[in-house]
Amino acid sequence: MTDPNKSSEKPWGGRFSEPTDAFVEKFTASVAFDQRLYHHDIRGSIAHATMLAEVGVLTVEERDQIIEGLEAVRAEIERGEFPWSVSLEDVHMNIEARLTDRIGITGKKLHTGRSRNDQVATDIRLYLRDEIDAIAEELTRLRAGLLDLAEREADTIMPGFTHLQTAQPVTFGHHLLAWAEMLERDAERLQDCRKRVNVMPLGAAALAGTTYPIDRAMTAQLLGFDRPTENSLDSVSDRDFAIEFCSFAALLMTHLSRFSEELVLWTSAQFDFIDLPDRFCTGSSIMPQKKNPDVPELVRGKTGRVNGHLISLLTLMKSQPLAYNKDNQEDKEPLFDTVDTVKGCLRAYADMVPAITSKADNMREAARRGFSTATDLADYLVKKGVAFRDAHEIVGKAVALGVAEKKDLSEMTLEELQQFSGTIDGDVFDVLTLEGSVQARDHLGGTAPDQVSAAAGRARARLG
Amino acid sequence: MTDPNKSSEKPWGGRFSEPTDAFVEKFTASVAFDQRLYHHDIRGSIAHATMLAEVGVLTVEERDQIIEGLEAVRAEIERGEFPWSVSLEDVHMNIEARLTDRIGITGKKLHTGRSRNDQVATDIRLYLRDEIDAIAEELTRLRAGLLDLAEREADTIMPGFTHLQTAQPVTFGHHLLAWAEMLERDAERLQDCRKRVNVMPLGAAALAGTTYPIDRAMTAQLLGFDRPTENSLDSVSDRDFAIEFCSFAALLMTHLSRFSEELVLWTSAQFDFIDLPDRFCTGSSIMPQKKNPDVPELVRGKTGRVNGHLISLLTLMKSQPLAYNKDNQEDKEPLFDTVDTVKGCLRAYADMVPAITSKADNMREAARRGFSTATDLADYLVKKGVAFRDAHEIVGKAVALGVAEKKDLSEMTLEELQQFSGTIDGDVFDVLTLEGSVQARDHLGGTAPDQVSAAAGRARARLG
Amino acid sequence: MTDPNKSSEKPWGGRFSEPTDAFVEKFTASVAFDQRLYHHDIRGSIAHATMLAEVGVLTVEERDQIIEGLEAVRAEIERGEFPWSVSLEDVHMNIEARLTDRIGITGKKLHTGRSRNDQVATDIRLYLRDEIDAIAEELTRLRAGLLDLAEREADTIMPGFTHLQTAQPVTFGHHLLAWAEMLERDAERLQDCRKRVNVMPLGAAALAGTTYPIDRAMTAQLLGFDRPTENSLDSVSDRDFAIEFCSFAALLMTHLSRFSEELVLWTSAQFDFIDLPDRFCTGSSIMPQKKNPDVPELVRGKTGRVNGHLISLLTLMKSQPLAYNKDNQEDKEPLFDTVDTVKGCLRAYADMVPAITSKADNMREAARRGFSTATDLADYLVKKGVAFRDAHEIVGKAVALGVAEKKDLSEMTLEELQQFSGTIDGDVFDVLTLEGSVQARDHLGGTAPDQVSAAAGRARARLG
Amino acid sequence: MTDPNKSSEKPWGGRFSEPTDAFVEKFTASVAFDQRLYHHDIRGSIAHATMLAEVGVLTVEERDQIIEGLEAVRAEIERGEFPWSVSLEDVHMNIEARLTDRIGITGKKLHTGRSRNDQVATDIRLYLRDEIDAIAEELTRLRAGLLDLAEREADTIMPGFTHLQTAQPVTFGHHLLAWAEMLERDAERLQDCRKRVNVMPLGAAALAGTTYPIDRAMTAQLLGFDRPTENSLDSVSDRDFAIEFCSFAALLMTHLSRFSEELVLWTSAQFDFIDLPDRFCTGSSIMPQKKNPDVPELVRGKTGRVNGHLISLLTLMKSQPLAYNKDNQEDKEPLFDTVDTVKGCLRAYADMVPAITSKADNMREAARRGFSTATDLADYLVKKGVAFRDAHEIVGKAVALGVAEKKDLSEMTLEELQQFSGTIDGDVFDVLTLEGSVQARDHLGGTAPDQVSAAAGRARARLG
Repeated sequence: MTDPNKSSEKPWGGRFSEPTDAFVEKFTASVAFDQRLYHHDIRGSIAHATMLAEVGVLTVEERDQIIEGLEAVRAEIERGEFPWSVSLEDVHMNIEARLTDRIGITGKKLHTGRSRNDQVATDIRLYLRDEIDAIAEELTRLRAGLLDLAEREADTIMPGFTHLQTAQPVTFGHHLLAWAEMLERDAERLQDCRKRVNVMPLGAAALAGTTYPIDRAMTAQLLGFDRPTENSLDSVSDRDFAIEFCSFAALLMTHLSRFSEELVLWTSAQFDFIDLPDRFCTGSSIMPQKKNPDVPELVRGKTGRVNGHLISLLTLMKSQPLAYNKDNQEDKEPLFDTVDTVKGCLRAYADMVPAITSKADNMREAARRGFSTATDLADYLVKKGVAFRDAHEIVGKAVALGVAEKKDLSEMTLEELQQFSGTIDGDVFDVLTLEGSVQARDHLGGTAPDQVSAAAGRARARLG
Repeated sequence: MTDPNKSSEKPWGGRFSEPTDAFVEKFTASVAFDQRLYHHDIRGSIAHATMLAEVGVLTVEERDQIIEGLEAVRAEIERGEFPWSVSLEDVHMNIEARLTDRIGITGKKLHTGRSRNDQVATDIRLYLRDEIDAIAEELTRLRAGLLDLAEREADTIMPGFTHLQTAQPVTFGHHLLAWAEMLERDAERLQDCRKRVNVMPLGAAALAGTTYPIDRAMTAQLLGFDRPTENSLDSVSDRDFAIEFCSFAALLMTHLSRFSEELVLWTSAQFDFIDLPDRFCTGSSIMPQKKNPDVPELVRGKTGRVNGHLISLLTLMKSQPLAYNKDNQEDKEPLFDTVDTVKGCLRAYADMVPAITSKADNMREAARRGFSTATDLADYLVKKGVAFRDAHEIVGKAVALGVAEKKDLSEMTLEELQQFSGTIDGDVFDVLTLEGSVQARDHLGGTAPDQVSAAAGRARARLG
Repeated sequence: MTDPNKSSEKPWGGRFSEPTDAFVEKFTASVAFDQRLYHHDIRGSIAHATMLAEVGVLTVEERDQIIEGLEAVRAEIERGEFPWSVSLEDVHMNIEARLTDRIGITGKKLHTGRSRNDQVATDIRLYLRDEIDAIAEELTRLRAGLLDLAEREADTIMPGFTHLQTAQPVTFGHHLLAWAEMLERDAERLQDCRKRVNVMPLGAAALAGTTYPIDRAMTAQLLGFDRPTENSLDSVSDRDFAIEFCSFAALLMTHLSRFSEELVLWTSAQFDFIDLPDRFCTGSSIMPQKKNPDVPELVRGKTGRVNGHLISLLTLMKSQPLAYNKDNQEDKEPLFDTVDTVKGCLRAYADMVPAITSKADNMREAARRGFSTATDLADYLVKKGVAFRDAHEIVGKAVALGVAEKKDLSEMTLEELQQFSGTIDGDVFDVLTLEGSVQARDHLGGTAPDQVSAAAGRARARLG
Repeated sequence: MTDPNKSSEKPWGGRFSEPTDAFVEKFTASVAFDQRLYHHDIRGSIAHATMLAEVGVLTVEERDQIIEGLEAVRAEIERGEFPWSVSLEDVHMNIEARLTDRIGITGKKLHTGRSRNDQVATDIRLYLRDEIDAIAEELTRLRAGLLDLAEREADTIMPGFTHLQTAQPVTFGHHLLAWAEMLERDAERLQDCRKRVNVMPLGAAALAGTTYPIDRAMTAQLLGFDRPTENSLDSVSDRDFAIEFCSFAALLMTHLSRFSEELVLWTSAQFDFIDLPDRFCTGSSIMPQKKNPDVPELVRGKTGRVNGHLISLLTLMKSQPLAYNKDNQEDKEPLFDTVDTVKGCLRAYADMVPAITSKADNMREAARRGFSTATDLADYLVKKGVAFRDAHEIVGKAVALGVAEKKDLSEMTLEELQQFSGTIDGDVFDVLTLEGSVQARDHLGGTAPDQVSAAAGRARARLG
């Protein structure tokens, strides 16, 4: 077996006159975090070996030996028995050295026609493609949960806020569909990103291509890539796909942070609009009464993490000349952590959302206060011929009185209302009810319960 | 005319008992920067008025009066004679107040069935769509210039670098196509972003829709939007499109920063690979000999600006509850500056790239030094039956000698080479030439001149 | 007068064979934004000329001519009559060219022994030092306002929150002092930053120093700098001070964003803890009842802007080789906008904070609900000999009952309480009152009203 | 022993009706990363217990039992035998539960008068203070190495660059001192940060202080803190110190990125100014000739990571209301990784810098080319009475000729030079030498070798 501490074992030791400094060896090694790629590394190697045999660079026997050897290595890793070695730097060299331990000199032939530069770029893309598909699934599950809840709550009335001030009544279902819209855009962006992930750099070799008669289209097909990349220099240095994924993730987390903020508000004693089940909350070690909305808070906090990773990667790539530079080794940890964070948050939300229960009475009571139908009164005046801006001013004065006298518009008498405008009549009370208000916003995108149900139906159809 | 200093003129003054603090008025006003949206604001208002007339909320006469008035306002703005007022807060209120000055009470009817919340969201999308189209054009021009240059330089040999160390010879055309690939991905991402920009929020009103019988599909069609948005709460608070645009821009600028870095390196005395024409450079006020690559340096520096704006917008939206909050006013300056920066940088590069001249002799000489064909020697050995890893070690030792004796591999005698491996024969010198090296990388994505020409051709076809 | 369009007028035209491209000229010019530095540029030039005369490089007559000329230029700028020229690139060349127009060839001598590289670095430091002092003053004003309010509200009881759940009663004064603590740290950081700003790069010339017998200590003294910088290469390329200032600003804005978040919460109908005067709020163009906390929302949003500028500058400087590169021109706009943003936000808050009025009844009622004295009950039990963790569990069960029966702990009978622990006695009701609870936290940093008053006193003493 | 899967073991289980969801338990637990704090957690607990005994809350026997128990737990952790449990959430509960396993009910008394909120804030500050001291040491070591090298290279001539164009000759020692200046500012900032780290939050309890008669000054003294914090609400929510540390780190990494960029440039074949020993470099798996400057590249890349963490923390804290929220759990990983990154990079550089060897001949030759003494010629003319701007133009024209004829100024004949200005005389060649040029910049901060040596001496004195 390879001696991990024998530096002449380095795959590139030939021209070097002294061994790597021990601290430097550890500082520059990536195996501690890139071993996560083992599965995709082996998958890529098998495809590469298969192609090399097809074009005659390897014999069929060599290919079979290599594939068998790689599968044995994979099994060893999955059994937790693989002797990872820092001095072998990365997942690629670890696996290749182990392969050579097992099958001898033929193992060394696997690296023909490729380099670690194109190999790692291929591994990450294979990895990320799988993770994108897993994320897409959780996203679908969360969206489905939101649509279910939205349909159930299509006519539950709550206050709609702007500036966190009561604005107009909306339905809880309508509010939930706003979140579904955000997540639908995220899902679209994720698929757009996937197109650009699913292209194969293998064959770019170190930077310029290889002198072997490789068939990149074949390897691409074996690995499920849409096509090979077009330019070898770009292939080994491009990390756009990681940045684009993190951009997707940053927007998704922004949406979850906003959703979280509202869940935190709504579970406060002051709002008290919803209940989260105990299993998504935790308590306090000192305050026995506390039931804290930990999951939303933690998800909200994790937004920072993902924004940070996006900046890490953008900073990493800034001003890097072509082609591969060692800097690029720093692409993995931010990407891996972004993937884990997004998956974890989506899973937590997809589990939690169906368990949210609304407190319809509290929502309704909150909507009833706060002059939420003031706009309806203004619209009523306009429909009776008052110019909008004038109607606005009339209602503003009525509200000022209401504030002073702690009385909602619907609680004023006709006489009180008429002192602000003679145009007001007995039918005004129809438009000042909460139901009247939401039902009146009856157009595509509006909060009328029927529109909400229809919108949920369309969203479900798009969810497929 | 409206007295800009008379606070009772505020569109929302009704319920307020004291005027806005003078500093606060300025601090919270956006008209200083959002007046840039006047064109799209008026365009949106004309479509809105047209739709209101179609559904019977306005009479045809009112509609015509409004449209005529708005066009007069637009002309006034374009003549530089418009009396912008800070106390009217924003571009929307400025234009509406001016319209009402001109056409009287009918002007106040224009705001029926909409709110500033959906109006501004619509304006920004109209604006951004136009700018995306302008940016797409500059991007196409730059890519075309790169392809032209790449075709001309398809067989100019230069050193390919990894770790800024000479790695293998490539062609300058191949290197240029790497940049073209990056920009092609940018162009794709821009179109993906455009899809999500081109959706119409108008009709969401303040947050919940409106009680007027609006026809959002009609307005969307009049304004060239693909469709109206699906949810009113989301519509007024969504700024995803601005963030996604800035994500696109950050990646584009990252690419330009890398391109710039190389132009700066290549115009240094140490590299001296290219010449930039004087008109894209500036001098020094103190050092008379200087010719500084200002444009690439400045573009490289502007990367920071765009990364910063992306973070601004992500931070802005983090944890905002639904629906519109005043925070959102801060979306405009980062977006506007990102648009301006991207357009300026692309224009400068699209102008400059065709004027780059290569210094082929210097490039070639640099490739000749630095053992750039060492990989070719290793491949030669492998093809003669040596295992790759062993070949690597043999060549490593030959290079170590070359470093010690300041002698390239191609300058060694056969005897010198043979001391490292008996497998080496007289035909080795064929693979140690630069031409031999680049031509041997003859597969899709490789640096062989024919592959480079073919790749440029395909890229041109995709450019359309 | 200088013809701004005649490119041979460029201060560095000698070796150039073609004029700058017109778009490039505008693209690379900084005068549009750096003219803001005119005052400090002239101040620096006067000190430089004074020093040059002292060491004999200029005659006393030349010095006087230059100083008089510069003061005339300053007056011209302040009258708004200065003919800024883009083709003269920046504020420095504009002023120097204008000086030479006025006083002839002697004007050209001013640039002896310096370069624009050290000149601009000096200007920005002079500018920033002044702005730091202005910001320090606003910060002091805001802190003083907070302390006043805290003293007035030292015993107003409100709920203290963790996880936005009612935790324990605190006093409003105590809460306000938390903000004062944050701002005090900001003020310290600002002074730490100022030390590193107030060092003079002038004399570094282009990058290596100058061959003239300059006396940098003298110029430093004339300009109020603590000392000249130690290394010329560092001097012209260092932008640490701008980044450090933006780091200070990002933390300050983070604090203001948190403060803003609470003001927004507290003015919502759900919390209703405070009132902001109308003059710091605005209304809605469509919803007549709205009174929006615009100032806090806008300040909260502006956090993004400052975080973005910090990232701009860090990205800008990443990987820049020594010494000055054109990239550095991009340092100004983020810095200027950070200064303006911080000053504006502080001014708005310093004006607004004294005008905040508390709604003590609402605060108290909120504290009364939500089992805010549960910890006090646990402590009571512990003091009677129950282990803390056991006491915690006993109270947890009592709270669970309270939740189920909608009854606060203080509303339960002794018998009800005793079913959870026989240790509970009649004296328990003393610790279950809000006053008892806050007064019991009577140690340095605790919320007992006396501690709050004492803390405000100490903070006032530190404020000086 | 505690059953980690038994949820009633949760320290806050009393009021909860269902156990935590298994995924949520893992998702919200921090023990996987906060166990790193065990040492400081135990240290803090020992001080807390000591103080509790002093004020009479614990008996001396209880105190001794607790301290003995905690030390046994520490030993167990350090032997790798501690049974970390995810269901116990964090390092604090793990240690406390284990303590109680060992010493029984007395273990539960340790938590008297504190909460996890103030406990974790204290732990992080203790941890960070230690790490700051370790970082300060590495920083000193790196600075000392730079000063040694600078002294050795005080008169080695190299080209000074601006815009990566040869500008003026400088000495290598002078260039190195520029880096030393940057790092000295970092060291100052680190100490400024340390002041604000070294303040003790313990005693803030959950948010409001505690009802026990604690003596915070005593605990602070036991733990080496400068003082207890002033406000309990601020204490449990403040993460300024982490952000300030990351700001320090981002600037330090920016400096190292710039240093790295130059090391990468200087080891390229094109510059070839220095040699890095093999032990700090690695090779290529495919190109046998490569010797890659991995350490500088990796350090440059790690800049992104630290900028990212800074943004993570700023985003995390944005808009968080008081006091502690679960979001804050996300403060640890960015901070820990920043500490590790900074320590690793500093260690690598402190080891590597003394091993840098200059290639003085190459540096000198590069300085000789590129008209680096053009400014000296201009200064020469000025000293003979020509106005600076005119001298600049004269030299510009001489350089244009030199470029055309590939001839340095020092290689022109007197006659050739005189065609540009009759003022030029035979003594001009004195100022056109490299030595003459550097020696002429003989003032504080200038590149004259004596100034460089003196500056190194002053820097060494400040290093202490």
